[in-house]
Amino acid sequence: MMTRYFFEDLEPGQFFELGTYTVTKAEIIEFANEFDPQPFHLDETAGKASILGGLAASGWHTASITMRLLALGFLNNSSCQGSPGVDKLVWRKPVLAGDTLAVRMEITSARLLKSRPGFGMINMALETRNQTGAVVMTYNNPAMFTLRGEAV
Amino acid sequence: MMTRYFFEDLEPGQFFELGTYTVTKAEIIEFANEFDPQPFHLDETAGKASILGGLAASGWHTASITMRLLALGFLNNSSCQGSPGVDKLVWRKPVLAGDTLAVRMEITSARLLKSRPGFGMINMALETRNQTGAVVMTYNNPAMFTLRGEAV
Repeated sequence: MMTRYFFEDLEPGQFFELGTYTVTKAEIIEFANEFDPQPFHLDETAGKASILGGLAASGWHTASITMRLLALGFLNNSSCQGSPGVDKLVWRKPVLAGDTLAVRMEITSARLLKSRPGFGMINMALETRNQTGAVVMTYNNPAMFTLRGEAV
Repeated sequence: MMTRYFFEDLEPGQFFELGTYTVTKAEIIEFANEFDPQPFHLDETAGKASILGGLAASGWHTASITMRLLALGFLNNSSCQGSPGVDKLVWRKPVLAGDTLAVRMEITSARLLKSRPGFGMINMALETRNQTGAVVMTYNNPAMFTLRGEAV
């Protein structure tokens, strides 16, 4: 695959619309069984009885779907070398069965790494919305990118 | 299931060892195909060539495994009603195929919610280590718990 975005191509204020993903009831239950087996992620009745108001995706499922869209829609066309973590991840609204999620990423800062010549750190602000336009999740995500022509 | 831990039972300084989980190469690739299809999470050669040093689990996979141990080892015995998010999530070291992860959770604060009578917010500090004792991931996770005898 051609690498389109190197560190030099990324500047604060740039943003990317990263596509959409519809999450099914079956997927919500499958993810919860494997990774987050709390009743309100596994069972419609328990979900409705909870403050989530319905069978709701694990927050980690929402984050993982967002990661999928970020990888396919941006990182896999970039020189990204991985991320040290995420900060201020907020699950703002429940994600319910049948919701269609859309992800937007905005570059908020860019700096060269003195400790690692040829690499820079880009901060990305992620925002995931549902089909009504409501924001369901936000987080900040720094990631390392190589400069153009830099071998890894 | 009996609920053992309500808000009143949780105090700063308490900690819980939440068991272990061994992550296989097949699971790393399966999770990456579904949620984080970057080369260093999908392919042994690409992983070795990257700064991760081997086929490495997606950070979201490590977080999801940690969530599994937190749910099975603690939350499912508690009155937890969900979490508003996580903060300061740091992937400190790569998780490689065959690693056995162990999770420790410590309560760092507890306060009643004025906005929601009968509920309290507990802050949990999560730490995930590998079989050598090295910390691979840490994060802070607030979550809501009902008081004993409080209907949801």
